[in-house]
Amino acid sequence: MTSLALHPDRLFPADPSTREVARRLYDSVKDLPIISPHSHVPPEWISDDIPFRDPTSLLITPDHYVTRLLHAHGVPLHELGVGAGELDEDASRAAFRHLCAHWGVYAGTPVRYWLESELVDIFGVTEVPTAQNADAVYDQVAEWIARDSSRPRALMESFDIEVLATTDDPCDDLAHHKALSEDPTFSRRMVPTFRPDRYLEPGRTDWNAHTDRLAEVSGIACDSWAGWVAAMENRREHFRAHGAVSTDHSHKDLRTDVLEVADAERIYAAARSGSITAHQAEALQRHMLTEMARMATDDGMTMTLHPAVARNHHGPTFERYGADVGADIPVDVEVTRALAPLLNRYGTSPNLRLVVFTMDETVFSRELGPLAGFYPSLYVGVPWWFLDAPDAIRRFRKAVTESAGFGKTSGFIDDTRAFCSIPARHDMSRRLDSVHLAELVVEHRLREEEAAEVVHALVADNPRKVFSL
Amino acid sequence: MTSLALHPDRLFPADPSTREVARRLYDSVKDLPIISPHSHVPPEWISDDIPFRDPTSLLITPDHYVTRLLHAHGVPLHELGVGAGELDEDASRAAFRHLCAHWGVYAGTPVRYWLESELVDIFGVTEVPTAQNADAVYDQVAEWIARDSSRPRALMESFDIEVLATTDDPCDDLAHHKALSEDPTFSRRMVPTFRPDRYLEPGRTDWNAHTDRLAEVSGIACDSWAGWVAAMENRREHFRAHGAVSTDHSHKDLRTDVLEVADAERIYAAARSGSITAHQAEALQRHMLTEMARMATDDGMTMTLHPAVARNHHGPTFERYGADVGADIPVDVEVTRALAPLLNRYGTSPNLRLVVFTMDETVFSRELGPLAGFYPSLYVGVPWWFLDAPDAIRRFRKAVTESAGFGKTSGFIDDTRAFCSIPARHDMSRRLDSVHLAELVVEHRLREEEAAEVVHALVADNPRKVFSL
Amino acid sequence: MTSLALHPDRLFPADPSTREVARRLYDSVKDLPIISPHSHVPPEWISDDIPFRDPTSLLITPDHYVTRLLHAHGVPLHELGVGAGELDEDASRAAFRHLCAHWGVYAGTPVRYWLESELVDIFGVTEVPTAQNADAVYDQVAEWIARDSSRPRALMESFDIEVLATTDDPCDDLAHHKALSEDPTFSRRMVPTFRPDRYLEPGRTDWNAHTDRLAEVSGIACDSWAGWVAAMENRREHFRAHGAVSTDHSHKDLRTDVLEVADAERIYAAARSGSITAHQAEALQRHMLTEMARMATDDGMTMTLHPAVARNHHGPTFERYGADVGADIPVDVEVTRALAPLLNRYGTSPNLRLVVFTMDETVFSRELGPLAGFYPSLYVGVPWWFLDAPDAIRRFRKAVTESAGFGKTSGFIDDTRAFCSIPARHDMSRRLDSVHLAELVVEHRLREEEAAEVVHALVADNPRKVFSL
Repeated sequence: MTSLALHPDRLFPADPSTREVARRLYDSVKDLPIISPHSHVPPEWISDDIPFRDPTSLLITPDHYVTRLLHAHGVPLHELGVGAGELDEDASRAAFRHLCAHWGVYAGTPVRYWLESELVDIFGVTEVPTAQNADAVYDQVAEWIARDSSRPRALMESFDIEVLATTDDPCDDLAHHKALSEDPTFSRRMVPTFRPDRYLEPGRTDWNAHTDRLAEVSGIACDSWAGWVAAMENRREHFRAHGAVSTDHSHKDLRTDVLEVADAERIYAAARSGSITAHQAEALQRHMLTEMARMATDDGMTMTLHPAVARNHHGPTFERYGADVGADIPVDVEVTRALAPLLNRYGTSPNLRLVVFTMDETVFSRELGPLAGFYPSLYVGVPWWFLDAPDAIRRFRKAVTESAGFGKTSGFIDDTRAFCSIPARHDMSRRLDSVHLAELVVEHRLREEEAAEVVHALVADNPRKVFSL
Repeated sequence: MTSLALHPDRLFPADPSTREVARRLYDSVKDLPIISPHSHVPPEWISDDIPFRDPTSLLITPDHYVTRLLHAHGVPLHELGVGAGELDEDASRAAFRHLCAHWGVYAGTPVRYWLESELVDIFGVTEVPTAQNADAVYDQVAEWIARDSSRPRALMESFDIEVLATTDDPCDDLAHHKALSEDPTFSRRMVPTFRPDRYLEPGRTDWNAHTDRLAEVSGIACDSWAGWVAAMENRREHFRAHGAVSTDHSHKDLRTDVLEVADAERIYAAARSGSITAHQAEALQRHMLTEMARMATDDGMTMTLHPAVARNHHGPTFERYGADVGADIPVDVEVTRALAPLLNRYGTSPNLRLVVFTMDETVFSRELGPLAGFYPSLYVGVPWWFLDAPDAIRRFRKAVTESAGFGKTSGFIDDTRAFCSIPARHDMSRRLDSVHLAELVVEHRLREEEAAEVVHALVADNPRKVFSL
Repeated sequence: MTSLALHPDRLFPADPSTREVARRLYDSVKDLPIISPHSHVPPEWISDDIPFRDPTSLLITPDHYVTRLLHAHGVPLHELGVGAGELDEDASRAAFRHLCAHWGVYAGTPVRYWLESELVDIFGVTEVPTAQNADAVYDQVAEWIARDSSRPRALMESFDIEVLATTDDPCDDLAHHKALSEDPTFSRRMVPTFRPDRYLEPGRTDWNAHTDRLAEVSGIACDSWAGWVAAMENRREHFRAHGAVSTDHSHKDLRTDVLEVADAERIYAAARSGSITAHQAEALQRHMLTEMARMATDDGMTMTLHPAVARNHHGPTFERYGADVGADIPVDVEVTRALAPLLNRYGTSPNLRLVVFTMDETVFSRELGPLAGFYPSLYVGVPWWFLDAPDAIRRFRKAVTESAGFGKTSGFIDDTRAFCSIPARHDMSRRLDSVHLAELVVEHRLREEEAAEVVHALVADNPRKVFSL
């Protein structure tokens, strides 16, 4: 057996003087509460305080970061429980053995870093997982799951999560959020996020059905563009009333556009009647996204955008297992021209806050930094999804800071459904921002006192400001 | 108050052995004279030795590097004097207070680095600017401005600027340059740069007016393509006679093309008669740019290209404040296919020198390095505008050197209208090239003696060779 | 004279603790045999054990890495022997003097690194080449060439090349490979590679001629799509029988597509009759490439793809000197959408191994890492051509590892026709992978024992697995 431990200086650079500064900066923020303004944690976990079921459904099955690499090394997804419903103990242990036996494939990836952090810090595991000790590690995690202190609400406390945002459909009644906000025993904060993608893509075959439901839930007829706008405003208001601070958008690109009202009405009518062309659908979608920005200048909800992912890249996998199983692949994105219509109209509105996330690193220095360094409304989203990893995060700060500074970047978002990875993800971000700043300090580009102010702002102030928390 | 000082090792890496080599390399070039083959300093400043007016118009208002980040943090441009004409003292002080109060937003940016260098090295300021000491800092800069030794010509001496290139319209009479060249008391060199963009874009609504003026100034009828070519050659000759060594070009992309002469004449006639189509205008523009290269092979003027910026991205800002106020945003660029027509025709002409600048870093290793490593005429321009910053410059050398070496990169250009930032900008470049070379030395990729030759070449020889100085 | 020596720590970072780990990791793999699954060494060199002719034809003329930079600095290609046939001694010495006199232009490039390694380790040169000592260096290399131990087969032994893959036309009879495999005195392994580009581009003017020859050589009529498929399968089988483990593909982009069989037949017929349109030619080419993947799932040959190079960028150079003289320039590439049709059909086939090489670094983190981290069949090719260089290799590992791990990258390929550079190229790769891993170790991201396993896998296991060796 090989012992597993977390080094206190992990992620810090080897150079002794830089490491020393990084350590001091990190120490100044490591115990600050976690603010998580974008996650995929199901709200009922918290509202109903549902205990986790078993190690595999906690750590493997729902986490496409974990399953994709096993799949890439030949493990079929169904052997990991994907698309399989609740696993019996044999199947659950078999899946867990796959993970442990393939521990080596995660070398150098952030998944390894997060899992090691969880194993040691949360579950108390002290051995590197292997095919041989898989059952023992499973037992240890299972034993942890069985404790009262391992239930989601207790973890909100012990992880020190101050705010947790979920991601929700505009037609959701937000009952879980309501229940939680009325529960005096819950001292933390869970807020919904308005995620209207499917209502903003009139080219989808299910768009009319969703729009019908939007009309029904809002009580506002959606037979006209004006009606759709009013219904959307109604649902945003519902979300605001339940604590929402942001809307979240992911389309195939970032293109925005502004139609004349008459054109919007005409194309909208075509969409409702099922006679919309592909070209019109695209035009209307871009107009709808811009209209969301207009609403944001009115109601103050922050607007996050993370475009340009080819979802469900492998058809047979999608047909068998559905979405979100690790087969979403980034494509290149364009920002400067795409957002021009929106920014020309609303980019200097004092009430707008727009955060653009990307997995196309080329736009960090070329487009997002320059844009955020001019438009007061625009913030550069921190590295996300495939880029939420040490080297990518280091590249991000180097690519963006010189044109946008630190103040025009969003705070860290974990974007995860892997609840137990949240502390490790935020800790990684704090360590890496400390390292970036430490390098500026030792190269005499920033005084250490100011670096300490900056790292505090990145952890505590930027997310509160960007998401009005 | 926090004291402000410049560390002698600033921008040098923490590793002691690398730092020691970097220091030695830097020491060998730090006192070499400044060669500035591309700037935006108004020529009358030097020819008429116009004193600077006040700290705000010296350091803030005309410098979009400074104003854009204040704007991004909510300061309206007019409060910084942009578009406001000459400020009275109250307004000037108020603008200066904005800068000092927002000192933190520049952390990690090159603007901070340049301003700190200027404050300490030029103005003698010893405190970090804040909202509280803004007036005192203002007074100190104002007092410096009042000295005789602070006038532009004296600064040309004390900054040790050997050559300074301005940027000029082809129809400019270059009277300031003429006056200066005839002035025996001026021992430095100021040269004009031929910047014909507006004459090369026949799709512009003002193209015919500019062309009329070209005909008038050159005394050559521009009613035919042949006439336009002759008029352009005439103006280039005028510039050559006044010391010009380069022409400078910025269009939306890098595309070049070669038309048959008959087609050029036909499309040119359409442009003059106002009946040109968008497609024709593009074709003629690309042909005109290629024709500029042809002229360059004849008269030996270096041709610099820096395409792919979406100028005046925010319409309302442009309408209120005009151009060059910080709202120009880069877009992606393509080089390999775009320059093929030009390079096929003139790429191996011994008399051509072509320098391509970019803000799209993706082309450094993919296209510019490989092209410059084959075509004798092509040089990779050093990082420019948003990329003229420590981390970006480090990336540039790493991206370009392995395919193009050091000898096929242009020397440093400061590209600035902020006169007092020129020494700091060149100093930054010398430090960073020294750091890049020091790393090669300590990794045993280059002997230190050869690294010393290279850094001397980068500072002193490359710009002289590339710009025939 | 300046003495020339190779430092044992070359390419290792300055930081002492990182260097120490890198040294240990490198020591553990430096003496492993060389596996070269992709090269351009002519097979007759090995089968006929042809002695090298002279220093210039060994080190300069056929190596476009060397000639391109001399050309960029004004040396005409014909003075380097390009396109000149066999050089007499005077011409050979003159070319060699060009190289020595221009030694400085290679500073910071991998060519310098490889040449220095060869000069010291292979030829025993102890002085830095200069214009002055060029003849002496020439003599020393010429003397080395004259030895029996310098013939290709002896070098296969002394370089410890276990496997060497050549690159061959599908119609090649592979007589050299056959002779060698039947020669009991040859204890190494040389395998052919199936390179069918010209047969897969029905838009080429010579496609019909090549297809006629394919029919002739295979003995299978190629007058139908089915015939073409059968003929291709026949030739693949011929290659398999002579030891081939991979097919190699380079087209202008990566686009794949699947036609209905009837459409394939119809368009194929149009191609054969010379009436194919450009659009059809493109469609058929994409279908043919996908069909190659289908064959690969049947016969198990690994498929390597390296698209997106503008070959023969400078027409006049191509007309005078032909292909492969240093004028091929990369363009941007797209992977995610381009490979979707192929991957949807064959991406999870257990028998398929697909390796994608690129010179467009932007796809490493954005597309290739994510794709290889999901599809079991897909491997990320290591940096190639212009990117086979220290800084680019460092960027590659940082860009790819976090999403694809180490196990989904191909082993190193040298891709060279410069036989004597093979050891230096593989050594460079081993050093740099050791450095990357050492950094993970000192930053406590990977235990050193595991790093040692990984570097061994990268050098010895990955290439054997990816290329079934």
